[in-house]
Amino acid sequence: MLHIEREIAEQPEIIRHLLDRERSMAQRIANAIRKFNPNFMYIAARGTSDNAARYAQYLFGIHARMPVALATPSVHTLYETSPHLSRGLVLAISQSGKSEDVCRVVTDAREQGALTVSITNDPNSPLAQASEFHLNLDTGPEISVAATKTYTAQLGAVALLLTTLKDSAELHASLAGLPDAIRETLIESEAIHNWIERYRYIERFVTIGRGYNYCTAFEISLKIKELCYIVGEGYSEADFRHGPFALIDPGFPAIVVAPAGKTQPVLKDFLEKLNERQAESLVISNDADVLHLARKPMRIPVGMPEWLTPIAAVIPGQVFAMRLATEKGHNVDQPRGLNKVTVTR
Amino acid sequence: MLHIEREIAEQPEIIRHLLDRERSMAQRIANAIRKFNPNFMYIAARGTSDNAARYAQYLFGIHARMPVALATPSVHTLYETSPHLSRGLVLAISQSGKSEDVCRVVTDAREQGALTVSITNDPNSPLAQASEFHLNLDTGPEISVAATKTYTAQLGAVALLLTTLKDSAELHASLAGLPDAIRETLIESEAIHNWIERYRYIERFVTIGRGYNYCTAFEISLKIKELCYIVGEGYSEADFRHGPFALIDPGFPAIVVAPAGKTQPVLKDFLEKLNERQAESLVISNDADVLHLARKPMRIPVGMPEWLTPIAAVIPGQVFAMRLATEKGHNVDQPRGLNKVTVTR
Repeated sequence: MLHIEREIAEQPEIIRHLLDRERSMAQRIANAIRKFNPNFMYIAARGTSDNAARYAQYLFGIHARMPVALATPSVHTLYETSPHLSRGLVLAISQSGKSEDVCRVVTDAREQGALTVSITNDPNSPLAQASEFHLNLDTGPEISVAATKTYTAQLGAVALLLTTLKDSAELHASLAGLPDAIRETLIESEAIHNWIERYRYIERFVTIGRGYNYCTAFEISLKIKELCYIVGEGYSEADFRHGPFALIDPGFPAIVVAPAGKTQPVLKDFLEKLNERQAESLVISNDADVLHLARKPMRIPVGMPEWLTPIAAVIPGQVFAMRLATEKGHNVDQPRGLNKVTVTR
Repeated sequence: MLHIEREIAEQPEIIRHLLDRERSMAQRIANAIRKFNPNFMYIAARGTSDNAARYAQYLFGIHARMPVALATPSVHTLYETSPHLSRGLVLAISQSGKSEDVCRVVTDAREQGALTVSITNDPNSPLAQASEFHLNLDTGPEISVAATKTYTAQLGAVALLLTTLKDSAELHASLAGLPDAIRETLIESEAIHNWIERYRYIERFVTIGRGYNYCTAFEISLKIKELCYIVGEGYSEADFRHGPFALIDPGFPAIVVAPAGKTQPVLKDFLEKLNERQAESLVISNDADVLHLARKPMRIPVGMPEWLTPIAAVIPGQVFAMRLATEKGHNVDQPRGLNKVTVTR
C-alpha cells in the first residue's frame, strides 16, 4: 500500500483526534484574541499550507469580519523590512514548522508586539517555538512527500479556532459532524478508481472554486501537478472569466468545486458556460443541480454547511491525483525533484 | 497594424503623460492618507488589475510598511458581509471601472468610513464615482481585449502614489526616468520577433518572479494564456519549489523575471537549478550574470531601481505573447471567449 493512500485514509480519525485534543488550546488562543482585539490578521505560509491560509482568509473574513492579508515573506527576508504588525493577529501555518521565511515573519511580528499563533505538525519545530501560541496537528509522521492529512488537519485547526472564537453552538455542532462527513466522502471517492483511466493522457487542466472553496481549487491543482506532472492551474471562477476562459476548447478538463451554498448560483452558471464550450467538466459537490451538469460527478455529503465543505471537498481531488499518478506509473510517494521539507528565503 | 501592437508602443508616452497630469491628484491623496493614518491597506481588483494590486502590495509593504490585504470580493457580494474596514485605506483598481464586485467593496468600505481611492481609465465610471478619490489613467481607449497599456499605467499610478506619499527626492528622480526606460525596453524587445518561431508549438509554460516582480510573472502568464491559449501559470520562485517544481522536465519553457536587486541571488540559484534539469529558460533581466544563464535573454535597461522594474519587465512578456499569438495565426485583438468588460459577482 502506498504511504499516501494510507495517509488519505487516516483523515477522519486525525480530525476527530484534533478536535478533541486541541480544544483547550483553541480556547486559550480565542481568549487571547478577544483580549488583544486585533485590527487585522496576517497569515504566513507556503505551498499546501498557503492553501490552508486561503481557507482562513475566508473563514475569518466572513465569520469574524477580519481584514485578512496573506503575508509576503520576501518583504521580511529579501527586502529586510516588515510591515507595521503591532496591532495584528499573525498566524503562521507550516507542516514541518521549519520554513525559514515563515519563521522570520513570526519573529518580526512578535518583536513588534503582535499576537502570534502557529499551526504545525511538530511542537518542537522552530516555528512552534517562535510563536506565542501553538496548535499541534499531531497527525503522526507524513511520509509521502505530497501533503494530504496535514492539509485537512490544518483546515480543521483553522475551523476549530474560528468556532471557538465565535463560541457558537451551531458552529460547534457542525464541526462535531466533520469526521463522519470525511469518512463518507472517502467511501464515495472509491468510485474514482473505476473511471480514472479516461484521464490517462490529459496534458492540461484547470480547477475552479469560489469563496470558501477557492482554497480547494488551488490545493487540488497543486496535488495533480506534483503527483502527475500535468500543467494546470487553480482559479476563482471570477478571475477565470477575466482572460483564462480563452483557454477552453472542446474536451478541456475542468474540475469545478461547487457545493450547495452561497457560491452555487455563480458556479452553476459557469458550468453551463463550460458545457456550451464542450469542456470536460468534473464536479465536486453535494448539490444535485450542479452534479447533473458534470461529465464526472464526485460527491460529498449532503447537508454539510458550506464553510466546512473545503475539508471534505479536497478529498476526491487527493484521490483523483493519487489514482491518476498511479495510472501513469509515477513514483507517487516520492515525486521527482521534491523534498518533504522545502527551505526557501 | 494590430491594435495591441499600437497600444504596446504607446506605453512610454502614456506613462509620461500620467506622471505629469496626475501629480496634483496624487498629492491630494497622499495628504489624505497621512491625515487618515490607516492601520492597513485593502486592495480590490480582478484579472490584469489584480496583478497591479500585487505590485502595490509589495511597494506599499516595503516602502510604506503597510500590511496589505488583497480583497476577497465574494465576501462582500456572495456572502453579503464585509470585514471591518473603517481604519483601512481601500484601493480599487479596474480598467473599465465597471466591475460590480470591485464597486461593492468600495461602497461597503466607504459606508464604514474607510479612506477610498480608485484607479481607472474612466472618471465617469461607477467605480470612480463610488470612491472618495480617483486617479485617472487617461490612456485613451484600449481596443484590444488583452490589457497592455492600461496595465503599465496602473503600475505607474501606484508608483506615483507611493512616491508622492514618501515624498523622497530619490524616488521622484527614479520615476522621472521611467518613460525613457520603457522606450528603451520596447526597442530591445523588437528582437523577440526574430526567434519567436522556436516556441510555435509549446503546449505549456511557467513564469517565475519574486518580490516586486511577482506581479510580472502573473501578468505575463495571463497574457500568454489569453492570447495564445497555452496552459501555464505564474509563480513565486519560493512557492514553485514547494511542489510544482516536479513539472520540470527537459525542454520545459520557463520565463524567469530576474532583474538586478534583492531578489537576484535566489533567482540566480533557481535558474541554475532549472538548467540542471535542462529546462528551456527565457530570462527578463538587466543583470549580466542571470542573462548569461538564459537560453533566450530579454533585456531591460541597466541601472533601473528594482522597485520600478515591473513597469519595464512586463513589456518583453507582452511582446512575446503578441508575437507568439500572431505566429500561431490567432485573432490577437479579439481572443475567443472574452469580452473587454467582464462582469463578475
